[in-house]
Amino acid sequence: MTLSHIRIVGSGLIGSSIALALSAKGVGVTMVDIDPAAQSLAQDLVGPAPQSPAELIIIASPVSTIAPVIEAQTSQSLNLGFMDISSVKVNPLLDVSALMKDMSRFLPTHPMAGREVGGAESARGDLFQERAWIIDSTGVAPELLAAGREVIEICGSHLIDMPAAEHDQAVALVSHLPQIVSSAVAAQLEGAPPEWLDLAGGGLRDTTRIASSSAKLWREIIASNAQALNPLLASLIADLQGLLDELNNPDSVEKLIEAGNRGRAMIPGKHGGIARNYTYVPVVIEDKPGQLAALFDECADAQVNIEDLSIEHSPEQFTGLITLALSSNDAQKLYSHLRSRGWRAHSPR
Amino acid sequence: MTLSHIRIVGSGLIGSSIALALSAKGVGVTMVDIDPAAQSLAQDLVGPAPQSPAELIIIASPVSTIAPVIEAQTSQSLNLGFMDISSVKVNPLLDVSALMKDMSRFLPTHPMAGREVGGAESARGDLFQERAWIIDSTGVAPELLAAGREVIEICGSHLIDMPAAEHDQAVALVSHLPQIVSSAVAAQLEGAPPEWLDLAGGGLRDTTRIASSSAKLWREIIASNAQALNPLLASLIADLQGLLDELNNPDSVEKLIEAGNRGRAMIPGKHGGIARNYTYVPVVIEDKPGQLAALFDECADAQVNIEDLSIEHSPEQFTGLITLALSSNDAQKLYSHLRSRGWRAHSPR
Repeated sequence: MTLSHIRIVGSGLIGSSIALALSAKGVGVTMVDIDPAAQSLAQDLVGPAPQSPAELIIIASPVSTIAPVIEAQTSQSLNLGFMDISSVKVNPLLDVSALMKDMSRFLPTHPMAGREVGGAESARGDLFQERAWIIDSTGVAPELLAAGREVIEICGSHLIDMPAAEHDQAVALVSHLPQIVSSAVAAQLEGAPPEWLDLAGGGLRDTTRIASSSAKLWREIIASNAQALNPLLASLIADLQGLLDELNNPDSVEKLIEAGNRGRAMIPGKHGGIARNYTYVPVVIEDKPGQLAALFDECADAQVNIEDLSIEHSPEQFTGLITLALSSNDAQKLYSHLRSRGWRAHSPR
Repeated sequence: MTLSHIRIVGSGLIGSSIALALSAKGVGVTMVDIDPAAQSLAQDLVGPAPQSPAELIIIASPVSTIAPVIEAQTSQSLNLGFMDISSVKVNPLLDVSALMKDMSRFLPTHPMAGREVGGAESARGDLFQERAWIIDSTGVAPELLAAGREVIEICGSHLIDMPAAEHDQAVALVSHLPQIVSSAVAAQLEGAPPEWLDLAGGGLRDTTRIASSSAKLWREIIASNAQALNPLLASLIADLQGLLDELNNPDSVEKLIEAGNRGRAMIPGKHGGIARNYTYVPVVIEDKPGQLAALFDECADAQVNIEDLSIEHSPEQFTGLITLALSSNDAQKLYSHLRSRGWRAHSPR
């Protein structure tokens, strides 16, 4: 099939980005928003709305508004039905099933992209390129499912079909729990003397990076996924309480750290599959423009592939420590290369 | 004063790295280890031990061995006394005070470097360059203090003088608590279906990065600092329990995320001082050798300074998303530059 007209309710970052991707491929889009300025900006971005009736409505408004939007849009004559894009799936499904007679006309989906809320002005057509886009195809009418697949393909995403309940459990574990914990650790810093914070290293920085996420965005996501999150958070608290009870027992500490080692090793490396054990090459560089470029020129000369990297700075200093992650072979190759060119590289580890 | 001979007990990464820094400046070093092979390797690295008596003993063995080492080394005729380098300060001080009559001959210190345990073979003389090196000078004899300052200066570190109890509270907050939490989150991943882990994004990766730390190293650090850690871990658990009790209440979720926002903002930016608000420029690149070099060449051409960066990969894909962090001005400058050169850069945010 080929889509000709999609109505998108919600003209924020996600809705507008989908609209940009669709309109770039010649699909007509009508933008809707409760905020007339947002709606008008988004419509301007994607060109004029078609006169024909829309085949599909994509609901790109907050999770609590999905059912009300469907209710408000029932007057629209739709060939296919509705598709949502919210980060939580079971709760909106329950809301929707309370008002829709024919649930085969609702396709629950979740594109895994766009953490920031930026409005239409931040929208970009490639926001979903190469990202996972989860759907739950259970009981969905074939025509609606085909339309959903087409939207996801146009957006350049990888479709993953997963039951709504499983989706919610998965994101509770890999996304919502880390968010809660990162925020809770960062919250403990409040009131600490500033000179203590000067001692913060990469560990605290990494652990609290997502603690700067938007509270407005996360309040609904977490609350809507409370059911899936509850046992996970309870288990985490029990583990922490167990450790607290035996905090001066090195064996108990070791047990938790080792369990963490095993869990961490389960996170796939890039390109999926089993986590790779990277080898790390630390390089001390001057903290000034051009140094990183020069370093990566050397990497290109050495024909090695950088898998990951991190930058660390000492407080008040103007040198930086770059740690490059590579395959073991590439690490040795790069290390020798950098040393021969006079770089302050240190042995791969 | 000028040091001529230092005895270092413990020939692991830290002890051997200090030894390398000292010997490079002409200070004679005697290496000691309970493992004769480790001792001999470390001594080989730093050259022959002087015949003269040592002025100072640096204890670079695990925290639980500090008092036993002092006891075993009392036969040594020392001008100055002892200095330790352990990650926890109060517990060893208590141990030492139970056996030393004259505590002015013990200087407690903690160099903030070297997370990996790698033995003498991983030692490097510049391990402590530009790092913080905390001491507690309270009641320490002036000559021993001067010697300690000289060691720290030779190692290229920045001395911070802080009471032992305050040190332990500070590292409990900025280092030990994040370690526990990161391990505990990663531990929850055990037993999860692999396809759930495929959905892991940067949030989970960052939050659990230090969960791959060495259990052998951390078991003692955390257990020795149980007293300082206890109230912090209890407070964190209370916060998490408070959230668990109201997990489906968006207001409670928002409160925690906002507290995390405030705490996160307290972590200093590079070069210390108040955290900077960086502006981020996302760039989509091909994941192949040479791409990073080309990108950083452009950064150099644009004469902008990259403050931080992250690399994200979609599962099973061969494109990567590089997010560059810059000052707001530099971000705009770089964005325009990259767009004009045909890069897939996206608006600064």
